[in-house]
Amino acid sequence: MHPLAEKVLARDMRGTARACRWADDRTGDYLTVLKDLFPHTGRAWTIGVTGNPGAGKSTLTDRLIAVFRKQGKRVAVVAIDPTSPFSGGAILGDRIRMQAHFSDPDVFIRSLATRGALGGLSRSAADVIRVLDAWGADVILVETVGVGQDELEITRTADTTLVVMAPGLGDDVQAIKAGLLECADVFAVNKADREGADAAVRDLELMIALGGEVVKAGVHSRGHAAGTLDIQKQVVRHDANKWVPPVARTVSTRDEGVAALVTQLEAHYAWLTGTESGAARRFERLREAMRTQLREALLDAAMGELGSALDDAAQAVAHRQTDPYTAAEQLVTAFRGR
Amino acid sequence: MHPLAEKVLARDMRGTARACRWADDRTGDYLTVLKDLFPHTGRAWTIGVTGNPGAGKSTLTDRLIAVFRKQGKRVAVVAIDPTSPFSGGAILGDRIRMQAHFSDPDVFIRSLATRGALGGLSRSAADVIRVLDAWGADVILVETVGVGQDELEITRTADTTLVVMAPGLGDDVQAIKAGLLECADVFAVNKADREGADAAVRDLELMIALGGEVVKAGVHSRGHAAGTLDIQKQVVRHDANKWVPPVARTVSTRDEGVAALVTQLEAHYAWLTGTESGAARRFERLREAMRTQLREALLDAAMGELGSALDDAAQAVAHRQTDPYTAAEQLVTAFRGR
Repeated sequence: MHPLAEKVLARDMRGTARACRWADDRTGDYLTVLKDLFPHTGRAWTIGVTGNPGAGKSTLTDRLIAVFRKQGKRVAVVAIDPTSPFSGGAILGDRIRMQAHFSDPDVFIRSLATRGALGGLSRSAADVIRVLDAWGADVILVETVGVGQDELEITRTADTTLVVMAPGLGDDVQAIKAGLLECADVFAVNKADREGADAAVRDLELMIALGGEVVKAGVHSRGHAAGTLDIQKQVVRHDANKWVPPVARTVSTRDEGVAALVTQLEAHYAWLTGTESGAARRFERLREAMRTQLREALLDAAMGELGSALDDAAQAVAHRQTDPYTAAEQLVTAFRGR
Repeated sequence: MHPLAEKVLARDMRGTARACRWADDRTGDYLTVLKDLFPHTGRAWTIGVTGNPGAGKSTLTDRLIAVFRKQGKRVAVVAIDPTSPFSGGAILGDRIRMQAHFSDPDVFIRSLATRGALGGLSRSAADVIRVLDAWGADVILVETVGVGQDELEITRTADTTLVVMAPGLGDDVQAIKAGLLECADVFAVNKADREGADAAVRDLELMIALGGEVVKAGVHSRGHAAGTLDIQKQVVRHDANKWVPPVARTVSTRDEGVAALVTQLEAHYAWLTGTESGAARRFERLREAMRTQLREALLDAAMGELGSALDDAAQAVAHRQTDPYTAAEQLVTAFRGR
């Protein structure tokens, strides 16, 4: 076993930090370390925390750490920052608020920068989560700042996804809600002491109800819109194991509603690990993760071998001597032919 | 030539809509159509419009359409909506505001849903942009709702990226600014009649100045922090062709500052097409697009041929019989061996 993997398993903080950095940067013997650690993973409960900017995700994450620590659980936090080569590193920003936990040996906090690499963020996140799982985390909180597709991809790899909302955040909130609805297992309407909180909760509950119908109508009564509602009721009756996302209310700055929120998160985890539907979902997620892994492994292998052929192809496309579709097909053929 | 490609080149609206749908859904003879159209692309100026939810991107996009139409330009709009299988289709939301342009035959508006496919959004966007380029658009506005990595990837494929901000949008705005800084060619502080607009402009200008320094210090004086500022000054002196993003002020609801913003966008396009640095950047973007194309072509080919091997690999990983890294390597080998 690689000495760094041994350090992670021995719960050495600095060694674990280095293993995370290697996994994120893809430097050192990162692949050996990840392979060595993998048999020691699978114990942690991963919770994705996402939602609109300004919803108060960081403060709520901070409160969740406190609740889990009181339960005696070891906690890791992976904070996904939309940083860039331009600004040169992860913006710590309100991560500072979590400083109270920095001296706690059973809390590990890691910021992950997004370096603009294609799909690089979700790959890094998955690998760092595995390191922290092997380190012995009982709970891993993955907090994303943005709400784009890559962030959705990350939260989709989590066991439980918590979507945090706040009342009154502007025009596009409705649209973003729709994007998040799909991946949410539990909703928290945070800043619930603000005006508009009741309306936000009602909107969400309506959306959850309607969303379920749309999906079922699409699957079970394609072309028979008139029968939608009846069919939907039947389906719900026969699909008692389906998880319906609950909506919690929190005021994280005053620590209100957080314990109740944790109970709902735990209920989801019980569903996930204790029912057949939960098992099916876990396998679907695993399959998706495997697909991402394959996509990146293919690209790595091809980029390593094709050398300047990619540049040549880009030149030919720039001069309209070929089109990008044909050029990509030829690169795939060249890669397979070697 | 495929009949649908002929319809696009003949500027048939319904045919163009169908070609966009095929490209987005990857159904029909979409690949033939895209290949046929490619030689007729390369004329359009693509402008990415991105920024925080609530910054007023849709209204500003609407105003930009009007200015370009007054110039006699043909305009296409691609609106990227973070929708999902759950909600069943693209949320039109405030797209409604653009309805004034729906009857104009020289304006083409297309919503693109994000279906949660890995990397699928940027691929769809690139293909739909090519269809609209072939249709004869002079300007293509690509408006993203989210600000995640996938959206950054899309705006990176645009010729010119406009980042829209508004004063007072909550805690995480600072962090998101940093993520957007890298890809911004022009900034617009919208809702500039609001309190905090002056501060927002100052913050941005400071960030732009500092951002340049950080990058250059990193490249030119690694480990010599003391010499950073001097070195940076020299570099700036020798790098007169570098594009420095200007910051415009707009109140799009009152149509203020929009003409001046368009002048700044045009200045960027002149830089891009008229200078060596601009040409270098265009090639870099093209190379990145080629890389994305290759990644997706590899995954498509592999998924088509590996069949149930991916499921088997996921099962083996689930039972900890292998690790995902080794499993992915084996799948790559199997794919190349056929």
